Amino acid sequence: MQNQKKHKTALHEKDGIVPPQTTDNEAISKIVTKRRKQPSAQELIDGILKGNITSLSRAITLIESKNAKHLEKANTIIKACLPHANKSVRIGVTGVPGVGKSTFIEALGKHVIALNKKVAILAVDPSSSISKGSILGDKTRMEDLVKTPNAFIRPSASGDSLGGVARKTRETIILCEAAGFDTIIIETVGVGQSETTVHSMVDFFLLLKLAGAGDELQGIKRGIIEMADAIVINKADGDNLKRAKLAKVEFNRALHLYPEKESSWTPKVSLCSALDNTGIDTVWNMITDYISLTKNNSYFNEKRNEQNKFWLLQTIESRLKHDFYNNTTIKKELKEQLKRIEEAKTTPFAAADILLKMI
Amino acid sequence: MQNQKKHKTALHEKDGIVPPQTTDNEAISKIVTKRRKQPSAQELIDGILKGNITSLSRAITLIESKNAKHLEKANTIIKACLPHANKSVRIGVTGVPGVGKSTFIEALGKHVIALNKKVAILAVDPSSSISKGSILGDKTRMEDLVKTPNAFIRPSASGDSLGGVARKTRETIILCEAAGFDTIIIETVGVGQSETTVHSMVDFFLLLKLAGAGDELQGIKRGIIEMADAIVINKADGDNLKRAKLAKVEFNRALHLYPEKESSWTPKVSLCSALDNTGIDTVWNMITDYISLTKNNSYFNEKRNEQNKFWLLQTIESRLKHDFYNNTTIKKELKEQLKRIEEAKTTPFAAADILLKMI
Repeated sequence: MQNQKKHKTALHEKDGIVPPQTTDNEAISKIVTKRRKQPSAQELIDGILKGNITSLSRAITLIESKNAKHLEKANTIIKACLPHANKSVRIGVTGVPGVGKSTFIEALGKHVIALNKKVAILAVDPSSSISKGSILGDKTRMEDLVKTPNAFIRPSASGDSLGGVARKTRETIILCEAAGFDTIIIETVGVGQSETTVHSMVDFFLLLKLAGAGDELQGIKRGIIEMADAIVINKADGDNLKRAKLAKVEFNRALHLYPEKESSWTPKVSLCSALDNTGIDTVWNMITDYISLTKNNSYFNEKRNEQNKFWLLQTIESRLKHDFYNNTTIKKELKEQLKRIEEAKTTPFAAADILLKMI
Repeated sequence: MQNQKKHKTALHEKDGIVPPQTTDNEAISKIVTKRRKQPSAQELIDGILKGNITSLSRAITLIESKNAKHLEKANTIIKACLPHANKSVRIGVTGVPGVGKSTFIEALGKHVIALNKKVAILAVDPSSSISKGSILGDKTRMEDLVKTPNAFIRPSASGDSLGGVARKTRETIILCEAAGFDTIIIETVGVGQSETTVHSMVDFFLLLKLAGAGDELQGIKRGIIEMADAIVINKADGDNLKRAKLAKVEFNRALHLYPEKESSWTPKVSLCSALDNTGIDTVWNMITDYISLTKNNSYFNEKRNEQNKFWLLQTIESRLKHDFYNNTTIKKELKEQLKRIEEAKTTPFAAADILLKMI
């Protein structure tokens, strides 16, 4: 473990990898400001548009900073990158820990790079701000990809909230696309609302599963199955193969219970072994089929527009609520009103009236 | 049809029924104000607490009015009724049109009244404001109940939004309870978010189904099954009985896919025929079992507290959004920013920033 860590921090940004995210934003700011020759926004923009990984990494660090000056610089860069963004395929990958997400993503990434594409791998991990860990943090698992110049791997940003992490990831996607990455893979774990968040920023949403013993459907969050464009059963190798095939039948049955998707895409169940490197081509072909279909029926662009609108309204509404509930006077009165409601001295509607009149 | 309408309007409030809701609020106001001797708030309160149906009906009409003076009067009445409310069992009944909700509710209502209880039947129908119709509008279907002094039937309030209808229904529940109704049944149809809304104001949520041909699970909104404390398969009579029994097996299997409920109640599937009046006692026993269980494990009160808190926050948040999006300056700028997002000239986050700084 000690060795692994040393290995990780020895890796350099120019190798397409950054050290695992620290949650201490001041520390980030210090690192950023301490470097003697800070590149200007324009230098970073030029670098990104040329596909320079160091410029890309530095710009993302600005996005993740809490320093107002850094954010201002980040916004200038994002604005300049916007016309060059929007040209990739964005793929979301979710699955519980242990399902082999990293191995799967590495196999998929290598497959796509062999097709002359450039892959950026990001993560949305709301737990990283609590555990101070991060999925994708252990980059040694993606050893082969790390060495490839056409791959860019970035661990999950940390943040006070999933909304904060989401914003940073959405903006990072823009920079990656401007840097020429045409395939964006976003990893997330099944924690709280993170899948919904990732689903709202990708074109194709893939649920990675294992063939377990017993009832395959037990304990699955139905909402996630409903969002999935594909369910891929990983580790379908050796002794597992038979169970994986049974699981495929079960999942196919489960998928048929849902109404037809707006995309008119029929979600597929597929087997793969990231270890044996089997079935990865099938998954990729499935994704390209989906992209062709939705670009033809114009759903692809409609969905991206909808996603943008969703993020605009989402941001507005969460900020409105945040500002309201963090107002000191409101906080005090809310407590009082909740007590009165519990004692049946007022109704929720009368209490809301009083609170809203205070702002 | 013409005859039915005549029959309905001939019914009088003192019979425990009011004419179908009109969506024209000014018309309501006129009716209310035109009556020569308007009872005072105190008179209405006294009447309600004595169980007077006419007072109850009039007070509900005040809740449903848009006239500010009526609302003020309504609030005085609600406040006085609050200490006498909260003592009933609140049951939500949902199911698609044609499933026999009215017949089922009438049968259940009669069963409960025979046990010396008083039943109020309300409805939440978000479509009523659009179609100007209303479920529970056709009271001729509940002929027997209408004649019973221990039953009170009120069609869905109309409103600009589901939130508005919901508020009115929640406040109506308080008045009904204060008037001594110990069993509140709230009917809703599977339109949009209406089930979620009703679920958040009842103790027990019942999904009414039919045994159809083929796959019983096809096309069911999974979220509704997840909310259900019971699935009752109606019209389990004659030729239908065999299919109903098969459906029961299917639904039981579906229910087992969900994690245990917080109430520690295991949702049940039950058969009934509202027409033959079979199985209604089983349904009622199930409901009383649920109430005993949740009152013992204190979930009953916890849920009501949670519901109150939910309605407080819900009201605050919908009003915050409403006020923001209905601001003329915001409206104009939002349009502009959405255009800029679509043209990739800005990000949703930068646009939100600009909009929020305007207030």
